[in-house]
Amino acid sequence: MKLALIGVGLIGGSFALAVRAAGKFDHIVGFDSRPEAMRRALELGVIDEAARSVANAVNDAHLVMVAIPVGSIRGVLREIAANVSSTAIVSDVGSVKGSVVEDARCELGESFARFVPGHPIAGSEHSGVEFADTELFSGKLFVSTPAAQTSAQALNYVEGVWQALGCRVERMTPEDHDNIFAAVSHLPHLLAFALVGHVVANPSAARMLEAAGSGFRDFTRIAASSPSMWRDICLANNAAIARELAVYRERIDTLQRAILLKDARTIEHVFEAASQSVLRTVAHR
Amino acid sequence: MKLALIGVGLIGGSFALAVRAAGKFDHIVGFDSRPEAMRRALELGVIDEAARSVANAVNDAHLVMVAIPVGSIRGVLREIAANVSSTAIVSDVGSVKGSVVEDARCELGESFARFVPGHPIAGSEHSGVEFADTELFSGKLFVSTPAAQTSAQALNYVEGVWQALGCRVERMTPEDHDNIFAAVSHLPHLLAFALVGHVVANPSAARMLEAAGSGFRDFTRIAASSPSMWRDICLANNAAIARELAVYRERIDTLQRAILLKDARTIEHVFEAASQSVLRTVAHR
Repeated sequence: MKLALIGVGLIGGSFALAVRAAGKFDHIVGFDSRPEAMRRALELGVIDEAARSVANAVNDAHLVMVAIPVGSIRGVLREIAANVSSTAIVSDVGSVKGSVVEDARCELGESFARFVPGHPIAGSEHSGVEFADTELFSGKLFVSTPAAQTSAQALNYVEGVWQALGCRVERMTPEDHDNIFAAVSHLPHLLAFALVGHVVANPSAARMLEAAGSGFRDFTRIAASSPSMWRDICLANNAAIARELAVYRERIDTLQRAILLKDARTIEHVFEAASQSVLRTVAHR
Repeated sequence: MKLALIGVGLIGGSFALAVRAAGKFDHIVGFDSRPEAMRRALELGVIDEAARSVANAVNDAHLVMVAIPVGSIRGVLREIAANVSSTAIVSDVGSVKGSVVEDARCELGESFARFVPGHPIAGSEHSGVEFADTELFSGKLFVSTPAAQTSAQALNYVEGVWQALGCRVERMTPEDHDNIFAAVSHLPHLLAFALVGHVVANPSAARMLEAAGSGFRDFTRIAASSPSMWRDICLANNAAIARELAVYRERIDTLQRAILLKDARTIEHVFEAASQSVLRTVAHR
């Protein structure tokens, strides 16, 4: 079985290591627009072969896995459609699903039924194939967001691969996916980027960073993710993110007014809404 | 040497365990307004003796360490002033220093020169003496914020104790402390509380929390801190926090406009301001 991996970064590289360890593929050909990333992936044994182009990589592959920033997916799907076999399954790992499904619908033609939109909920503040990790997906959630036209066989196959890597699998609509991850992933990243940028812009930033405790370091870790990848996510899921941000800002406005007025009751009320007992109740209802 | 510990929670309990391990005190008497916390502290061997009152605890103590929420410090300092020996040193671990120094100035009278305002930059999302940890302060920063009247002997003594626990010590003015921690601690906690409260308020919260990855879990961990402790911090440092929040919101407003307009350049610009290379530059300048 041959896997064509388009994009040999952290996620693509970890997928390659994990499917090889699980015995799912005996040949992995990779393509990346950055020659250096491909060279490293070859050196590290993450891929067996470096392709000259997307066309070259997907030729006679059984599975094509697209692991690149969501803003670049459409162009790559176009190249895949023109070169992939009529039985190959195509999938992706993009963090936004509505836009990717539309890209695939526009570009893949007949292959659209064999396209399985997916999103493993795993990552790291590090990027690049150097940080690829066989165990990155173990115990994590894999979300598939099939379209009405997605073939059940293709869907089951891709979900089975992720299950073999130790993922639990959940299906949802692209819309539900994008709304959920706007709230629990995209908005938090955006707040973290803005907070770290805010502190760095302060004339006393060096002293502040030295004094910062573990709470702030969690933010710097989140904000260490790739700016271009997150720019793409914001553009691809802009409506849902803007909606979440608008509602979040109302809560921040309430808090700011309460802090200025020293309104102890409102401050505590906002904080208690986030307390662990509330979280536990919600998680189990 | 006798230590009087007022407040036997996570920080006070960890301080007691650590100073005992370092051989600094041979008798530790604790007082807490919550009888259950004192009972647990005795059971766990964190304190040797449970006092009936602050007055009872501080009587003949060499060091009085106040480890309670900043909103409660003033009343406790008043009780200490009336009962402490004329040679005892008094210190605290409050997260806000300007208000504590003013409280001490008002309440301690002659003892004010032997009051050393302090803040160890250590903690956990857990609260309570059950989570007290001998190593909590090891390798962490301890900030002292002496007033002009603070005796050099008292200051050196308290800093020496924290150094013996493995802390590096930095002195700053209460104002600098409060401005710095408004940015790197108070604002991040406030954003995390608001974010987790925002998600919990969503009708799909249960599904969202199940789907959330490690980025969001960092926020829930930060927001798991005690709501009443953080309410006190917001009240005590309200001017600096409100100022930080106002500037931060401008950055969020810029981002929201850019996301609505799909302005890729501005989005990436905001994100790149937080990138690791920027952080490294700032940290070393």
